[in-house]
Amino acid sequence: MLSNIRIVLVQTYHPGNIGASARAMKTMGLENLLLVNPRCFPDPEASRLAAGAEDVVANARVVTSLAEAVGDCVQVVGASARLRSLPLPHFDEPADMAETLVANASDDPVALVFGRERFGLTNDEIRHCSHQVSIPANPDYGILNLSQAVQVLAYEVFRAWRQRPDSGFRAPRPSPERQPTREQLGHFHDHLSRVMQASGFITQPHARTEDQLQALFARARPSRKELSLLRGLLSALEERPDDT
Amino acid sequence: MLSNIRIVLVQTYHPGNIGASARAMKTMGLENLLLVNPRCFPDPEASRLAAGAEDVVANARVVTSLAEAVGDCVQVVGASARLRSLPLPHFDEPADMAETLVANASDDPVALVFGRERFGLTNDEIRHCSHQVSIPANPDYGILNLSQAVQVLAYEVFRAWRQRPDSGFRAPRPSPERQPTREQLGHFHDHLSRVMQASGFITQPHARTEDQLQALFARARPSRKELSLLRGLLSALEERPDDT
Repeated sequence: MLSNIRIVLVQTYHPGNIGASARAMKTMGLENLLLVNPRCFPDPEASRLAAGAEDVVANARVVTSLAEAVGDCVQVVGASARLRSLPLPHFDEPADMAETLVANASDDPVALVFGRERFGLTNDEIRHCSHQVSIPANPDYGILNLSQAVQVLAYEVFRAWRQRPDSGFRAPRPSPERQPTREQLGHFHDHLSRVMQASGFITQPHARTEDQLQALFARARPSRKELSLLRGLLSALEERPDDT
Repeated sequence: MLSNIRIVLVQTYHPGNIGASARAMKTMGLENLLLVNPRCFPDPEASRLAAGAEDVVANARVVTSLAEAVGDCVQVVGASARLRSLPLPHFDEPADMAETLVANASDDPVALVFGRERFGLTNDEIRHCSHQVSIPANPDYGILNLSQAVQVLAYEVFRAWRQRPDSGFRAPRPSPERQPTREQLGHFHDHLSRVMQASGFITQPHARTEDQLQALFARARPSRKELSLLRGLLSALEERPDDT
């Protein structure tokens, strides 16, 4: 599915942006890079900025026209900061764009097209697109660096993919701690209550104060180990000789 | 609200990353940059990569400890690609993190903290955090460049802000075209039907074919101008002498 998604960079001026874009792509599971008439490629700057994504740079296809890059795609989304006069279907939200792009990528090649650093895409190039997308940004300063725009849209594409039941993506997590039982929590509450009374903090069972503290600990959701730790602290406080 | 959000970069190695991060911030409405012991700052590379965000770089506060940077914040989110042993509350989804960060920023300063390019944040630094967040990424290659991570999280923060009713953010859109009335659409359907019959494409009113084409045009939602254009084309086709 993700392998059906092409990232197309049109006439990129700075080879460093090609490398940084390749890195951005790879962190988001995308490896299919096409370059339409890059000004300066291959170039050491592209490899340097690629960091661990040099393979994406090395495997990049260089073509001489956008038609060649996307002719066999079923959906071609032009990323542009500037609204043009062509009323193509337009996504205001990259997340919405990503959802359709990933859905279409199940069956057919699709493409996300980025223009030149300064000038974006020409109207002629937008004619090769089925959709446009822009990244909502600061109205006073809204033009992202090219590789940053690639990173944001790749992030949204990866997210749309992750959230599909068929992706099988699992966020890496440390193994969950065991939770205490209601009974164990009850013992803790009683223990806390005894220590509060013994210390003179409350002179008799005081429902409101006790409820508030119990609620606080409930929000913290202590694990069994943490509850044990708290019980140990309470025991040490009970045994401490009073300062008289 | 957004001005209450601090972006804190801890011991950044490459000054270029400071500049690129400043640019990323500004495109997403964030201008409050703090640098904890940057290796090399000020530096021409920081200004160069900042592009139009040099003001963010110029106004960056340089401090010598993370405590100084975030001591008065009510929420401090550490961004880390690496899970540590401290079981801080952790956001798997940057969007969820952004929602809480922006909500808290209504009233108090909050911070989003990024670590060193290679080593991230130390456990000591994570102790200054109330939460952690990671950017879900390719399990085989998931470490984003520092300024790219800033861009993605800033994008999510801006999005959380935009989506709040009190933000007043409006996506820039070209003025909407006027839509045709049902009556005008009806004329168009009749016209299309006449031309299809006159051409021999259908020999008599054919409900299914006509329905399908009408549905296609309905999905396209032609504006009044576009409908006019289509009517003109149909008229021209009607007048064209048959090729016999």
